[in-house]
Amino acid sequence: KINSDRLWDSLMEMAKIGPGVAGGNNRQTLTDEDAEGRALFQSWCEAAGCEMGLDQMGNMFARREGTDPEALPVYVGSHLDTQPTGGKYDGVLGVLGGLEILRTLNDLNVKTKHSIVVTNFTNEEGTRYAPAMLSSGVFAGIHTQEWAYGRVDAEGKAFGDELQRIGWRGEEEVGARKMHAFFELHIEQGPILEAEGKDIGVVTHGQGLSWTQVTITGKDSHTGSTPMPMRKNAGLGMARVLEKVDEIAWSHAPHAVGAAGHIDVYPNSRNVIPGKVVFTVDFRSPDLSVIEDMEARLRTEGQTIAEEMGLEMSFEKVGGFDPVAFDEGCVTAVRDAAERLGYSHMNLISGAGHDACWINRVAPTAMVMCPCVDGLSHNEAEEISKEWAMAGADVLLHAVVETAEI
Amino acid sequence: KINSDRLWDSLMEMAKIGPGVAGGNNRQTLTDEDAEGRALFQSWCEAAGCEMGLDQMGNMFARREGTDPEALPVYVGSHLDTQPTGGKYDGVLGVLGGLEILRTLNDLNVKTKHSIVVTNFTNEEGTRYAPAMLSSGVFAGIHTQEWAYGRVDAEGKAFGDELQRIGWRGEEEVGARKMHAFFELHIEQGPILEAEGKDIGVVTHGQGLSWTQVTITGKDSHTGSTPMPMRKNAGLGMARVLEKVDEIAWSHAPHAVGAAGHIDVYPNSRNVIPGKVVFTVDFRSPDLSVIEDMEARLRTEGQTIAEEMGLEMSFEKVGGFDPVAFDEGCVTAVRDAAERLGYSHMNLISGAGHDACWINRVAPTAMVMCPCVDGLSHNEAEEISKEWAMAGADVLLHAVVETAEI
Ligand SMILES: NC(=O)NCCC(=O)O
Ligand SMILES: NC(=O)NCCC(=O)O
Repeated sequence: KINSDRLWDSLMEMAKIGPGVAGGNNRQTLTDEDAEGRALFQSWCEAAGCEMGLDQMGNMFARREGTDPEALPVYVGSHLDTQPTGGKYDGVLGVLGGLEILRTLNDLNVKTKHSIVVTNFTNEEGTRYAPAMLSSGVFAGIHTQEWAYGRVDAEGKAFGDELQRIGWRGEEEVGARKMHAFFELHIEQGPILEAEGKDIGVVTHGQGLSWTQVTITGKDSHTGSTPMPMRKNAGLGMARVLEKVDEIAWSHAPHAVGAAGHIDVYPNSRNVIPGKVVFTVDFRSPDLSVIEDMEARLRTEGQTIAEEMGLEMSFEKVGGFDPVAFDEGCVTAVRDAAERLGYSHMNLISGAGHDACWINRVAPTAMVMCPCVDGLSHNEAEEISKEWAMAGADVLLHAVVETAEI
Repeated sequence: KINSDRLWDSLMEMAKIGPGVAGGNNRQTLTDEDAEGRALFQSWCEAAGCEMGLDQMGNMFARREGTDPEALPVYVGSHLDTQPTGGKYDGVLGVLGGLEILRTLNDLNVKTKHSIVVTNFTNEEGTRYAPAMLSSGVFAGIHTQEWAYGRVDAEGKAFGDELQRIGWRGEEEVGARKMHAFFELHIEQGPILEAEGKDIGVVTHGQGLSWTQVTITGKDSHTGSTPMPMRKNAGLGMARVLEKVDEIAWSHAPHAVGAAGHIDVYPNSRNVIPGKVVFTVDFRSPDLSVIEDMEARLRTEGQTIAEEMGLEMSFEKVGGFDPVAFDEGCVTAVRDAAERLGYSHMNLISGAGHDACWINRVAPTAMVMCPCVDGLSHNEAEEISKEWAMAGADVLLHAVVETAEI
């Protein structure tokens, strides 16, 4: 069993870096705070006797040597970056839970056949740079590194430049490592485990996602002196599309969700009818055909709204992944570990995207989930109990050690 | 008659300061560009032999002495600040048209009984600091100077501090000056004069305005893992209120307009359901009871939307003025001037707010309007012809000189 006090203390220590305004964190990717969090993680890994690898996307790999130099390592981890108003556990639990495994194995003086490598993937959240899970995506060969480097944030700063600036661009070729397996522990970020009173979610699938960035172009004009019939109000067009997004998602409920979290209005002046609005629609479903239907309806029904209102509308897909089925062997290792340890558990479909969703393309992968209070995440008030964290990390330990072989 | 080439050259010279991205201007109030524009205006006024007064709100007063020291001056002017993506003429034509009067009188060596004072009022646009017409409002005793100093921009910078920073805070008590009359030349910013083929709008009235800042509070949560029925989506609430605003304005058409130009979404991350949206609703009508009705409906119908969606909604009035009837004597002076000069003209109700609307409370006031292409304003593509500018400034000259007496 892991040392839950030590795990909790590390979580709280990490949370001091990039504190939020309401008890959570703002440690967005490739900021100075991200660099500081990375340095702390590295110091902990080195103290645990690990050697740190760093690839050209800034992905970090802390390695605890196995006894068989021929055996591919078992990987375990998640991400340390947060939302702008994020929680203390989203991602961090998975990285520090991985570190806690190494510390526990050190305590017990247990050697594994396969090396164990704890990872921190860069820019999982996707707030500063779309898409989410950018660097695990490059690792898995989904995106090219060049394309990723060229992604820009809201201020026009490129990913590649910012990675260089914070000093965490490594030399190692991205995706060159081969993995025996990958495990990710994560908070559920939804309400099911808590409602069902289960300690552990055995994640069998992940729902798919589609991010469509919509640009509506109307005409900036005066809110006072432009007669109603002459207006080309891109803001009103956005409002109608948001209603439509909600309607489309509900039409597939409970097998789909949809909303827009990002909305920028131009020129954003009280007395100027918005001439341009850019926003990102997030549709998700465990069923690929549902995602495709929602995306198609957004485009056709959005176009109809635009035409009726004399607006122009364009669509760009800025992120997405298909629904995922995790590796049966790894999923079984997670379920068996929970069973063996006597934790209550249930199968779960992940509502969120995770680095594991991309790594699953290049290595046998599974996820362990623990509950979070009220299913709340992407909110500074995100909370878990120490017991939940312990259960998750215990199951992670056993699934990883089982796979890495003693 | 004024020298239209000189007026035009000055307009183009001023437009070089704080250029926009699409041919217009971004010379927002209390920015370095505002300071630069003020300095240029001051240098021109001094070259025309005027003494410059500056009050504690940064309002500028360039005075050409009259022959009768006992006679109150006739004031003429507008504002030099622009929208973030504004045009070259909105406000600027009124200030430089006033300057052109002084230059023309100098050319002709004409002395007036009343002094003539050309004004530049600070923060007319209201983008950086709500409300619009802030400093003419303090001049007219509508707002206290202390309240105005405390207004903050989106970055939290206070008006008073920024005025001090750019070096244009004067010593003179605001509103201490008494005016014999005030005239403001402005582009129409709407389509009527062009459609009717008239050179001059004789502005008899101004429609009133109400700015209500709406704050909707929901709950930040994950766009993927939060089930549809558990969402408290402040962005969707905003969409429904925007639809309602449009419906309310149309219900009074053509005697009302309504829209929201300013919308801020928090935390504005693609995978976070918006927990908070702040936006400003702009309602206008020439009829006070219509404005009151629209404002009341926004509050009650907005509240209903909020309750249905489990959201919280609060309202703050951040700007407003009642419909205005300009001074009959001054209006007649404008109409007579247009008639005498042979320009085609018609009566007009101003769709936009102007410094003249506040000054009308403390001095006999009227406005002269000239057409603008397609009625377009608050847009970098705002355009007028040199002939339209000339007609407007000619009428302004004659109305002012008539009132200032030779
Ligand atoms: N786990 C998580 O919040 N990942 C961010 C990507 C997503 O939006 O699902
Ligand atoms: N003329 C003008 O655009 N003034 C700004 C105040 C308003 O919104 O009417």
